Amino acid sequence: MKISIERGTLLKAVGQAQSVVERRNTIPILANVLIEAEGDTVSFRATDLDIEVVDKCSAMVERAGATTVSAVTLHEIVRKLPDGAMVQLTDDSATGRLTVEAGRSNFSLATLPKEDFPVMASAEYDSNFAVPAPVLRRLFDKSKFAISTEETRYYLNGVYMHVAEGENGRVLRCVATDGHRLARIDAALPPEADDMPGVIVPRKTVGELRKLLDDDEMQIAVSVSEAKVRFATPEITLTSKVIDGTFPDYTRVIPMGNSRKLEVDAAEFAKAVDRVATVSSERSRAVKLTLEDDRLTLSVNAPDSGAAEEELAVAYSDERLEIGFNAKYLLEIASQVDRENAVFLFNSSGDPTLMREGNDTSAVYVVMPMRV
Amino acid sequence: MKISIERGTLLKAVGQAQSVVERRNTIPILANVLIEAEGDTVSFRATDLDIEVVDKCSAMVERAGATTVSAVTLHEIVRKLPDGAMVQLTDDSATGRLTVEAGRSNFSLATLPKEDFPVMASAEYDSNFAVPAPVLRRLFDKSKFAISTEETRYYLNGVYMHVAEGENGRVLRCVATDGHRLARIDAALPPEADDMPGVIVPRKTVGELRKLLDDDEMQIAVSVSEAKVRFATPEITLTSKVIDGTFPDYTRVIPMGNSRKLEVDAAEFAKAVDRVATVSSERSRAVKLTLEDDRLTLSVNAPDSGAAEEELAVAYSDERLEIGFNAKYLLEIASQVDRENAVFLFNSSGDPTLMREGNDTSAVYVVMPMRV
Repeated sequence: MKISIERGTLLKAVGQAQSVVERRNTIPILANVLIEAEGDTVSFRATDLDIEVVDKCSAMVERAGATTVSAVTLHEIVRKLPDGAMVQLTDDSATGRLTVEAGRSNFSLATLPKEDFPVMASAEYDSNFAVPAPVLRRLFDKSKFAISTEETRYYLNGVYMHVAEGENGRVLRCVATDGHRLARIDAALPPEADDMPGVIVPRKTVGELRKLLDDDEMQIAVSVSEAKVRFATPEITLTSKVIDGTFPDYTRVIPMGNSRKLEVDAAEFAKAVDRVATVSSERSRAVKLTLEDDRLTLSVNAPDSGAAEEELAVAYSDERLEIGFNAKYLLEIASQVDRENAVFLFNSSGDPTLMREGNDTSAVYVVMPMRV
Repeated sequence: MKISIERGTLLKAVGQAQSVVERRNTIPILANVLIEAEGDTVSFRATDLDIEVVDKCSAMVERAGATTVSAVTLHEIVRKLPDGAMVQLTDDSATGRLTVEAGRSNFSLATLPKEDFPVMASAEYDSNFAVPAPVLRRLFDKSKFAISTEETRYYLNGVYMHVAEGENGRVLRCVATDGHRLARIDAALPPEADDMPGVIVPRKTVGELRKLLDDDEMQIAVSVSEAKVRFATPEITLTSKVIDGTFPDYTRVIPMGNSRKLEVDAAEFAKAVDRVATVSSERSRAVKLTLEDDRLTLSVNAPDSGAAEEELAVAYSDERLEIGFNAKYLLEIASQVDRENAVFLFNSSGDPTLMREGNDTSAVYVVMPMRV
């Protein structure tokens, strides 16, 4: 193998690869990126056995071939090369080294045989459809904060992507929950997605996927089977196993009958919650909301360190209500709101509360109250 | 006590205070800031028993008085208040609380009696002089990287500030070393500093001092005794114990007879060292410098992961030399150079190497070689 490739192109491809590679590997080859050159294309492939990413880019291929080198080391080297440099990668099978040359810099890296690299088996997918990048970005960005980190509840360690019955017909839906709060985000269902099986996309995959979604004009090709999910742009293909478990029936958790409605400026609300929570150093900071006559009072009482109170002018005309929440959960939910107004729907101080953006029901959040 | 103070002014003063406060305190009052209001001035005082900082600012004092509250909590609150807000601090001795009010936010913080706050004893200073902020900044910024972190060699855990005999007369000098590298930075001696006793300024004090030195026009009042050092601007006074120990005789470490001279572009050199060091993952990465006929070759050989080599065009006309250094030390020293050219003076591959900026001898660095 002998190729010449522009530093910026190489950096992007190797960057994606090294991000998938786990820092602590017991299997040495999993630390490596598989570089394959043929025609006028070079592909960079990395895997942790659950996720595989392949980035194809154009390069001058003088001699076709393939090898594997440490993804982290190659990434570090390329990152430190000067902008705009041409980088030459030459594989010497006699010494078992890959030479990286740019200007007066010369590196020789240990390789491992390409035959040992675990390429993820290709799979049959039940459903193939395309989603604009901004739509996918919204689905995952607004739901991922609620992913559980409890390893014992492994079926909550991801975002449940599935087809569901929305208020105005069938939708592509992402749901995440950790039992304390829940996010349910809907998007228009792509026609070919109708028979997609529901899958739980793992947290790490959600993170890697995010890097494919920055281009507003991009269409993402999505393929789904019972066991795997694949997201692809023309250059990058991200394939991932899905979590082998059953996502709980979340619909029962979403309160439908909450009728006590609060409308509040989301940004002001988030800042006020953040401020009053300051006086408590406990991990689960409880903030009390007191609602009465278009007035919301946020208060925190920490006997040891002090107390805090803040008033906000809001729209609320129901009877007086006192209800407590974990400050962190309230903050996270309020920061999902893109529009000005957050609408909260309460029932009693012991029941789950629903939050949405204005009258838009395509993104709803549920948060459990705390006793205060 | 009852005062009104602008949020920005308060944030700066409390920010300086909370930075001196240690996060883990066994003595509760050391977590607090002492607020004293009198006339039209409020002072904020914090200490860790070794360092004390006092920030005086103007405020509307409605009722004089003093109290102490958690520095970290107060800082967090003020940080989260909106820009430009007026903040009212009211001490209620009946409840033992300090009320912090701004707009519709209201906080009530636990206090501890002002009588319990350990105010650092005032001291007699042997020497009082003024130094422009940029001069003091240079002295400490260029030396502090060499401060030792080994607690057993406590007398190296700071910067040795003293009066010394320079090439062109007496100078104000800062020296730091950890036994592997050394920095010696000189500045013109302020006339009144002539009889200053040499003091070892602790690492934490150097860090806190740095915050006083951003204003190029500022004159810093420096006071020194055998036991203490004080740095003051019109608003802020930083007092610190000095390290009770004897700084070793560093002059013997600085090689005077090194005659093999290398001139190199400092920025290019640093980048090249950084690049070739990439292939080694060891903590003490050795970089080999090979010098011959206006050519410098940097190389690293890590049998497990690979090798790297880079050539630089330099000025060097002495006989061939091979010498190894810790990459981190070389990088740190090269990044001290403000001018284009770094000048290295070598003796043999086993002897300490001297580095300076061009022909300027007011900042010299020594680094010990490694066997490669």
